[in-house]
Amino acid sequence: MGHRTAPPPISWLMHAALSRPKLISLAAGFTDHVTLPIEISRKVLNQVLRSPKAGRPALQYGITAGETNLRQLTARHLQQLDQSSSSSFSSSEKESSMRDEDEKIHSWERVMITGGSQQLLYMTLEALCDEGDIVLVEDPTYFVFLSILQSRGLRARGVRLERDGLDLAHLETVLQRLKKSGELRRVKALYLISYFHNPTGVTTSFEKKRGILKLLKKFERAAGHPIYLIEDAAYRELRFKGPDIKSALMAPGAAERVIYTGTYSKPYAPGARVGFGLLPEPLFMTVQRIKGNHDFGTANLLQQLLAGALETGLYDRHVAKIEKRYGQKAKVMKQALAEHFPPNVEIWESSGGLYFWARLPKHISTGVKSKVFEAALKNDVLYVPGELCYANDPARQKPNHEMRISFGSASEENIREGIRRLGKALWELAAKERKRHKK
Amino acid sequence: MGHRTAPPPISWLMHAALSRPKLISLAAGFTDHVTLPIEISRKVLNQVLRSPKAGRPALQYGITAGETNLRQLTARHLQQLDQSSSSSFSSSEKESSMRDEDEKIHSWERVMITGGSQQLLYMTLEALCDEGDIVLVEDPTYFVFLSILQSRGLRARGVRLERDGLDLAHLETVLQRLKKSGELRRVKALYLISYFHNPTGVTTSFEKKRGILKLLKKFERAAGHPIYLIEDAAYRELRFKGPDIKSALMAPGAAERVIYTGTYSKPYAPGARVGFGLLPEPLFMTVQRIKGNHDFGTANLLQQLLAGALETGLYDRHVAKIEKRYGQKAKVMKQALAEHFPPNVEIWESSGGLYFWARLPKHISTGVKSKVFEAALKNDVLYVPGELCYANDPARQKPNHEMRISFGSASEENIREGIRRLGKALWELAAKERKRHKK
Repeated sequence: MGHRTAPPPISWLMHAALSRPKLISLAAGFTDHVTLPIEISRKVLNQVLRSPKAGRPALQYGITAGETNLRQLTARHLQQLDQSSSSSFSSSEKESSMRDEDEKIHSWERVMITGGSQQLLYMTLEALCDEGDIVLVEDPTYFVFLSILQSRGLRARGVRLERDGLDLAHLETVLQRLKKSGELRRVKALYLISYFHNPTGVTTSFEKKRGILKLLKKFERAAGHPIYLIEDAAYRELRFKGPDIKSALMAPGAAERVIYTGTYSKPYAPGARVGFGLLPEPLFMTVQRIKGNHDFGTANLLQQLLAGALETGLYDRHVAKIEKRYGQKAKVMKQALAEHFPPNVEIWESSGGLYFWARLPKHISTGVKSKVFEAALKNDVLYVPGELCYANDPARQKPNHEMRISFGSASEENIREGIRRLGKALWELAAKERKRHKK
Repeated sequence: MGHRTAPPPISWLMHAALSRPKLISLAAGFTDHVTLPIEISRKVLNQVLRSPKAGRPALQYGITAGETNLRQLTARHLQQLDQSSSSSFSSSEKESSMRDEDEKIHSWERVMITGGSQQLLYMTLEALCDEGDIVLVEDPTYFVFLSILQSRGLRARGVRLERDGLDLAHLETVLQRLKKSGELRRVKALYLISYFHNPTGVTTSFEKKRGILKLLKKFERAAGHPIYLIEDAAYRELRFKGPDIKSALMAPGAAERVIYTGTYSKPYAPGARVGFGLLPEPLFMTVQRIKGNHDFGTANLLQQLLAGALETGLYDRHVAKIEKRYGQKAKVMKQALAEHFPPNVEIWESSGGLYFWARLPKHISTGVKSKVFEAALKNDVLYVPGELCYANDPARQKPNHEMRISFGSASEENIREGIRRLGKALWELAAKERKRHKK
């Protein structure tokens, strides 16, 4: 299988970055360095390791699915998020009567703790898919997810993305087309990055999530098996504007069909890599076995750290702090973009997460071999070319005129300077182009 | 793929254990609880998180293959182990002239840091094997490894184990047989638990490792591809008697064919799960990509903890301490076995690791449905039935008259009492048998 596992595009980018010391990277999906919770972590770890009850267990083997305490805290955490959220940016629903129902929906017994949500995505695909199977993805989508699909011999089919999330009409078209071609029986899941989508920053409304589940259900009979919705909520807690949106877990039928993956990595600390998921019962059992084969369960010490941070409220305080910080950095990027970018670039601004999405006119390529990318590198600034985020889908040509630009790890100063350099590169190329046209 | 992933036998055992509160488990492969390094870990973590240089990076994303510092420390650690070890229990070689060579052999650039060595085993199989491929294993072997093979649709073929390691003559017979049947092209690796083998406690001599590599090489032409030796050295540092044995990395041709997997979990702390491997160059690249798809790299915080423990010498001091402790516990078990077990049980005593291997007369079954297992449970003591450690191999009937008994996690008192109970169960069954024969 290994021979299929191609070098990830990101490694090329990292190599490019390392060879230019003055380079400002707006490419990395790293989180903000300055606000990493070193003090909180030290405090909690001291508490854990001093505790007669928690100390030794933190250094011992544990349970494959994760420590009961953290699984329960995680279920409660999700429940709180979903209870306090709007069903969309525009409407809301009665919520007080839903308490009991919520506890079933967010049952801790279906919570799995993993080494980041990435590991859960990997294991979920192992559990669901055989070689040649199809996973529907947003078009564009998270490029590492595409890399997993590719290395496992799976196929991706893109579903169009609009500013408020997945295009339901197009989803139906895609499913219909697969039905006609006899490939529907290979479709096992739809992968949706529902909050502050990577790479575009788009958030999918609750109504759309409900619509997606309905549509998938409708095609299940023809498929001959369940088609799951994998909701990747990795960026959910990095929200600096607007209300939270309910997760797909709150939609009818979710308990049987929604695989929700979340993480403490991005809101807390990637270096204490703990992710989690809430899975339908039978799938939970399978993924648990796969987790046992991978590593018997995530390191207890990290689990205790997160449990401690959650229990003491230090986690929530930290998240509030970094939300502010990302909000400020996004604002800086927005201003810099308005100042330095040519007006023919369409910016998709985000209310959370780490990314803005910049769309150039269609004829201007941004790929790794393009003039734009070359000019950016020459100006010592790096972005993620949009084309890397598109699946190989025979149904359309791969768009290659977009950029993912991140305000996650760069300082405010570097965001300003990075956008200035990128803008300069774009203006210069436009000038060259005009010259050539005149000739 | 998930549908193939069977529930692991160990979960059944754990269930049995939980339902009997007075039960003494000599089954678990857990490490000694009392000696877990809580003080050392607290000290190192405080240092790391207080350090202006290491603090924030410990909580940030890192490099897929692991932190350079820990990779270098790990390479040096392995080098030291191999330089100070005998080539076998009986002979030794000139070593001083080998320094330069060693540095190439233990090159840190081929060291990968993983979430325990289990994860590395998993990823190695992903890199090497396609469905239907064959991995040779010791007969018996580590049951979780068998579970990985099974879940990935791979086949295991057993090679006989002698008191001093793999039976080379039998290895040749097995390879010959596979060549004849046309299946040699499916053989990708031999998996060898070379130090204090799980479940038998056997250590394979360096001469035998060299012999294995030679034999595998000999059959490569007929196979049409490399046949790797996966040396699982998880128990290497839990040694309480005799000299260390050189790893297969020191044998001719090792750099191209030996995949060495080790771990800091067992000697230091399973709850700070960090393992490592040293892989041949091209395979390293593939496994690195797979690791990127799994989780981008092991949590930096844990890596910094281990690096700190290694750098300060606290790791070595801890290992010296637990070696003593395990030596004492093994001694207690040995005495208890001599006192309480019937003389018709053959004991394979170990000089390290966590396990003794008890072999009953061939007609007495020890499996989960056997009278022995039932009697043990009734007497509130648990062991791992030997049959769980044997692959499904059409070439022989599965032996089912053995037990793995662990002195790893139980206290000295519980070891004594557990063995007394197990001995009592065996004597009682023997008495019943005699009675039945008299009738």
